[in-house]
Amino acid sequence: MTQYHSNFTRLTNATAIILAKKLGLVDADANLSCKEIGDGNLNYVFHITDTATNNGIIIKQAVPYAKVLGESWPLTLKRAAIEANALIHFRSYCPEFVPQVYYSDEQLAITVMEDLSHLKIVRSGLIAGDSFPLLSQHIGEYVAKTSFYTSDYHLEPSAKKEVARQFTNPELCKITEVFIFTDPFFEELPGDFEVELTDAAKRIWHDQDVILEVAKLKQSFETEQEALLHGDLHTGSIFASETETKVIDPEFAFYGPVGFDLGQYTANLLFQAVSRNGAGKEEIFTQLDEFWRSFEKTYSELWNTHNKSPFRHVTGYLPYLLTKFKRDAFGFAGCELIRRTIGLSHVADLNVMEDKETKIAAKTATLKLGALLIKKREELDVPAVIEWIKQQTLTSSSPL
Amino acid sequence: MTQYHSNFTRLTNATAIILAKKLGLVDADANLSCKEIGDGNLNYVFHITDTATNNGIIIKQAVPYAKVLGESWPLTLKRAAIEANALIHFRSYCPEFVPQVYYSDEQLAITVMEDLSHLKIVRSGLIAGDSFPLLSQHIGEYVAKTSFYTSDYHLEPSAKKEVARQFTNPELCKITEVFIFTDPFFEELPGDFEVELTDAAKRIWHDQDVILEVAKLKQSFETEQEALLHGDLHTGSIFASETETKVIDPEFAFYGPVGFDLGQYTANLLFQAVSRNGAGKEEIFTQLDEFWRSFEKTYSELWNTHNKSPFRHVTGYLPYLLTKFKRDAFGFAGCELIRRTIGLSHVADLNVMEDKETKIAAKTATLKLGALLIKKREELDVPAVIEWIKQQTLTSSSPL
Repeated sequence: MTQYHSNFTRLTNATAIILAKKLGLVDADANLSCKEIGDGNLNYVFHITDTATNNGIIIKQAVPYAKVLGESWPLTLKRAAIEANALIHFRSYCPEFVPQVYYSDEQLAITVMEDLSHLKIVRSGLIAGDSFPLLSQHIGEYVAKTSFYTSDYHLEPSAKKEVARQFTNPELCKITEVFIFTDPFFEELPGDFEVELTDAAKRIWHDQDVILEVAKLKQSFETEQEALLHGDLHTGSIFASETETKVIDPEFAFYGPVGFDLGQYTANLLFQAVSRNGAGKEEIFTQLDEFWRSFEKTYSELWNTHNKSPFRHVTGYLPYLLTKFKRDAFGFAGCELIRRTIGLSHVADLNVMEDKETKIAAKTATLKLGALLIKKREELDVPAVIEWIKQQTLTSSSPL
Repeated sequence: MTQYHSNFTRLTNATAIILAKKLGLVDADANLSCKEIGDGNLNYVFHITDTATNNGIIIKQAVPYAKVLGESWPLTLKRAAIEANALIHFRSYCPEFVPQVYYSDEQLAITVMEDLSHLKIVRSGLIAGDSFPLLSQHIGEYVAKTSFYTSDYHLEPSAKKEVARQFTNPELCKITEVFIFTDPFFEELPGDFEVELTDAAKRIWHDQDVILEVAKLKQSFETEQEALLHGDLHTGSIFASETETKVIDPEFAFYGPVGFDLGQYTANLLFQAVSRNGAGKEEIFTQLDEFWRSFEKTYSELWNTHNKSPFRHVTGYLPYLLTKFKRDAFGFAGCELIRRTIGLSHVADLNVMEDKETKIAAKTATLKLGALLIKKREELDVPAVIEWIKQQTLTSSSPL
């Protein structure tokens, strides 16, 4: 488990500064400060700043094994190369939403990239009540561009297969397969939730319709190579301000179903929708609506202008795909809602709620909504989901 | 196009014999004969026989470029390694239906394998009226075993992804994408058919429902990595006798939708069903029925006894998959029926028919059946397809 690459050396603040100077990314004479700002579980993140100009860079280094969700889990350093390559691919299709990579070293598992410290992690921002008025429009564009440009509709199918091979990512996909698609759906497998949620959890485990649909969704995740996905597109993987949005951390990148990125982002907005009240809740409904409008609009534009498939003009093909993406996304969103509530990895959006009764009501709602999205993904649409949440708020004994 | 590998040397009868002796696969003192029996388009095939014992071996060598379907098409020699590796994989799961590989050399694009000259190529046998009473039962078992054992239900999903990466096969997949899923469905793209079929061809090109469904089937072929497929499972890729069946030539092997192998075999039986009369026709109906029964029975047994997925016991999961495989297979079979009739590559089953009027009637029927299978693949089953063919025979002006 602790076998390091022969050439692997862990960076320190001092050697990170030496590397930055060696690469010519900072002035050789500059007075630099360096701070390790990662959580140390999967990666070390060094933030180097020129104390005179305040300009900075980020040096990220993966560690060869990792504590994931409380368990020790072996992970090769290859994920650093996958992340750096994914950032480069995604940035080639939408530079406005992806940080620049200045340098990467596969042996040392190092990626040197643009400093985004003027932006905020979206999850923390949303919890704090910050407003990101362009966020969902941007993420809709981002998913549309990355998923269209890496698909068989833009890349020559033979070329796509080579890119897909390059992004084979079994270890990180396994984390998703276990923690999103398996453990939360079986009573006997690991989970973590408040005792008050036991009945709601049992309703999911014993609902054979939910379990069958999760089996199908897991199969889709494991088999459908539609596009190069981010693979972990929750609000903790996005930096933003009122005007700017950057998607980071694509170490889970792989060729998978487009609905997965769409669904992860949707679910993480839904945690906010469930946990907020009044105008704050309406703001998230607007974000949800804008996200889906922006995705469908951008994807359709790209389809009509950049599609190289001989089938691009066939009536009904684009609507068929958009419907499939939505259906898959709602199902994946349902899995994410459930696994973040009764699985091993929770979200702060729900866990920071101080009133216990309100928190349990919110979590019960995410479980119900999760099951609904999984089972009814075919017929549901965004307005229906928003309406469902509104109804829950009205009928619930405690405010959601 | 004619750039050879630096170490590539084309075998001759003489050097093939030297290789066989060097490998110790034949007696050093044996009196050997060698005959090149390939068609020279994609591969050379040397059949070496010990003239005293009549024991033989086959040496197959891929050529670095190929005449495919009348066009010059560059193909790397890597396909020889893919074929040898696929034979080894498939044989590990069902040795009874796959020839043994004795030796392979990636640089020389050589595979040395079991001599099957005591068996007959099934397509020629069926055309000649030979009986292969166990053929379809065997092929049903073969597809069930190879598709189950290479899927996420038997392999650990991470391990499956590594095998899938190894079998990335863009060049050979492209041949399928162009010649099966694209060219035959657009009037302006290359095709080859009798002038009498023009109206029937136009009906397909102008049927937007057919074209939309073919777009979906092509997408499935390009994206769904369900299992390691043979990729070219027509009756010309099968050697058989009354008791024995061997599947050869998996150079198109790749991870794709299970329905593709099922559909190719089904379609190639259907060419026989359409072109035969009386008892011969009934014999093919029996083969069709046995094929699907055997596949579903074997796949279900493997599911119940060898499935490692935590979802294996979920009610409805196996029926869902079997229904999906059938639906996909019927769609792919429809594409094969059409492309072998109006595309560049035909089948002898139809082309050998001597009476012009009968041949045109048979080809018109394969086009109609192809469109029906593509459009109605959801609701059709084997008995309904058999019934449709019987009705055609009754209502047609000329015997089919």
